[in-house]
Amino acid sequence: MAELRSYTKEELLSLKQQLDKQYASYKAQGLKLDMSRGKPGADQLAVSNGLLDAITSRDWEDDESNHSLEYRNYGLLTGIIECKRIFAKALGVEVDNVIVCGNSSLNLMFDYITQCMLTGSGGKPWKDQGHIKFLCPSPGYDRHFAIAEYYGMELIPVEMTPWGPDMDAVEELIKDPSVKGMFCVPKYSNPTGVTYSHKTVKRIAAMCPAADDFRIIWDNAYIIHDLTDNGDELDDIFDVLKKYGHEDMVIEFTSTSKISFPGAGVAALAASDRNIEMIKSRMSVQTIGYDKLNQYRHVKFYRNVDGIKKHMKLHRKILAPKFKCVVNQFEDKLSDLGIASWTDPKGGYFISLDVMPGTAKRVYQLCKECGITLTAAGATFPYGIDPEDKNLRIAPSYPPVDELMVATRILCICVKLAAIEKLLAEK
Amino acid sequence: MAELRSYTKEELLSLKQQLDKQYASYKAQGLKLDMSRGKPGADQLAVSNGLLDAITSRDWEDDESNHSLEYRNYGLLTGIIECKRIFAKALGVEVDNVIVCGNSSLNLMFDYITQCMLTGSGGKPWKDQGHIKFLCPSPGYDRHFAIAEYYGMELIPVEMTPWGPDMDAVEELIKDPSVKGMFCVPKYSNPTGVTYSHKTVKRIAAMCPAADDFRIIWDNAYIIHDLTDNGDELDDIFDVLKKYGHEDMVIEFTSTSKISFPGAGVAALAASDRNIEMIKSRMSVQTIGYDKLNQYRHVKFYRNVDGIKKHMKLHRKILAPKFKCVVNQFEDKLSDLGIASWTDPKGGYFISLDVMPGTAKRVYQLCKECGITLTAAGATFPYGIDPEDKNLRIAPSYPPVDELMVATRILCICVKLAAIEKLLAEK
Repeated sequence: MAELRSYTKEELLSLKQQLDKQYASYKAQGLKLDMSRGKPGADQLAVSNGLLDAITSRDWEDDESNHSLEYRNYGLLTGIIECKRIFAKALGVEVDNVIVCGNSSLNLMFDYITQCMLTGSGGKPWKDQGHIKFLCPSPGYDRHFAIAEYYGMELIPVEMTPWGPDMDAVEELIKDPSVKGMFCVPKYSNPTGVTYSHKTVKRIAAMCPAADDFRIIWDNAYIIHDLTDNGDELDDIFDVLKKYGHEDMVIEFTSTSKISFPGAGVAALAASDRNIEMIKSRMSVQTIGYDKLNQYRHVKFYRNVDGIKKHMKLHRKILAPKFKCVVNQFEDKLSDLGIASWTDPKGGYFISLDVMPGTAKRVYQLCKECGITLTAAGATFPYGIDPEDKNLRIAPSYPPVDELMVATRILCICVKLAAIEKLLAEK
Repeated sequence: MAELRSYTKEELLSLKQQLDKQYASYKAQGLKLDMSRGKPGADQLAVSNGLLDAITSRDWEDDESNHSLEYRNYGLLTGIIECKRIFAKALGVEVDNVIVCGNSSLNLMFDYITQCMLTGSGGKPWKDQGHIKFLCPSPGYDRHFAIAEYYGMELIPVEMTPWGPDMDAVEELIKDPSVKGMFCVPKYSNPTGVTYSHKTVKRIAAMCPAADDFRIIWDNAYIIHDLTDNGDELDDIFDVLKKYGHEDMVIEFTSTSKISFPGAGVAALAASDRNIEMIKSRMSVQTIGYDKLNQYRHVKFYRNVDGIKKHMKLHRKILAPKFKCVVNQFEDKLSDLGIASWTDPKGGYFISLDVMPGTAKRVYQLCKECGITLTAAGATFPYGIDPEDKNLRIAPSYPPVDELMVATRILCICVKLAAIEKLLAEK
């Protein structure tokens, strides 16, 4: 098949007619398929059902003075020690540099940025520093951008490369003291699947921003979420930061949302001694403690990091075919046409699809009218504005494979239709 | 026994010698007893152990498409409908005016006040309104005061009467537009055990503060926590507010921390349509949702408000003798001496003990040196300063009755010793 750009008007019209027909026949089926969010499917939820039986009343029956007795009561602000140990090992930090919390790492990030706004990240409260800015590697995670936008910060997009954010641009931008921080999903980045290279991590750790209260939200959400045998390796950020004495610059977040249950997992953060102290002094006013029984439930179910790794193979077994289903069809239906490119990530939850510039919104719309929900076009960019209107985030995890097959088929039709419309308009 | 004030110096010295001996003998035992926090005891934790078995993997085995399937996944920001119904009924509001969240109502209050600081409660953000003040009925709850203090507000003490806060004072104070709100524990108030009278609730609901963004933190923590058959009745605040069109003035909070497990309960808030919208718009940036499985666990264990009421009788059976143990000894050891008064609450978690003015700190110190931990003297007042240095908050729930007996005996000795020291110094 030749590149679509080389088609004559007549050839385009003929292909359009054919695709319109296919589109109409799908539309008539009244489908309702969802590829919009990185939400585990029902089959994935099932593999964690054992978590529901991990602790029972019998754990307290034999010995009411059991050490875990206290886990039902108030206290232990920073989490239970067994759970802290697991996260410390996974993140490559000391136990004292970890706080294990409730079910949502997004909540921890929101609360941390809120803390920076009201009481500062080390210097003056951010609220008292006038107009401030945050760096947003893009395409990136819409819920990150939403936090900074909610607090009225200016979101500065930074281009994502296959090795992480464009560090030349970042190093230039941080010369501005009103730039207060940056969002990073360093492994299997949302949505590109990119894992930051050694060099990128090193350049990030070595940064000397003009703002000495600059903070990086290091959202290590997909820390062991491989889809292949040879998953990506990410350097432990705090090891690298230590070499430059820059440990205060990064707060790391992670959770079991895509390991156990999305709605009832355990989230944690890791930070330098100084940042942990500041976070603890806020938390000690905010709460008496997080849900320690759910932390204990996770400890009993997974036991250790190896237990989690083993569990992740169950997820991979379900997820890998879904990713393959989408990528294979993209290759089959869109290759050679020169109108789209996509990622084939080694882990994480997303495929990033770049369609013909200027058509992403139209593809979203065409899909929507045919019953396929995609993440809104532009959502992966600050303010929802994709400057080239070309990126779409595809989340293959939620639908079963048969539905995914149909949804992707329709998506490919829409990608082609939108491109043809654009080419015809240009002729 | 005569009033201590009427004792001669010689009589005081003789009594002191006797008490010193008793004190020394207890001190020699190296005791470690804790009456400092409203923490349920081990026996109370045990009555909720069934909660740990309320949901198991079997709930999802039979029917993977079970409606509760989604409770394991992302979503449902405001909580699961069955749980919202229970809280709506308990708080006397519509389901849409309830949000069910994580394990800590303190966290909800902190987050709400934080929201007011950064984005306002209806008017300008509180952070942009210069010096602001918060009314603190005292003695009151130290963790409330800590939130306002953390954000640099000025804490204004308001005297607690047997019917609630001194409303004459409150009505005067709210003429100041920099007064932005008030903390209330309207039922079995911490620590006095006072339940706000009909008249107090009416006067609160009728208030027209100079600040039209004035907000009341209505912490209904002890909503069904009776210790007697004829428990106190509190008017549903939103019913009364409605009469004055003042629904926006109050945010109500509650939790199951002292119903199920203190560390792993469910917290909720109730508010007007307008406030719910504002809270939801913040929460939708803050999190994808709270732990719905724990909400579901509570629904399955308690079923409804009647189920909770029945369960509370189990707590009462454990708690009532503990309260009785303390109050009986106070009556036995301190009556007639004219140096102390105390509450005998019909519910809640605390006994408020007023010792001879100027001696509360000394009593705390004497107890501490004898191995008895009390809530720090002054903690029940803003900035930890009890103007008369007389109030002590006694929390009888945590120690077993035999320990409580000893601890109270020692406490009574310390109350008398401190009073004698003071009287001797004045002679």
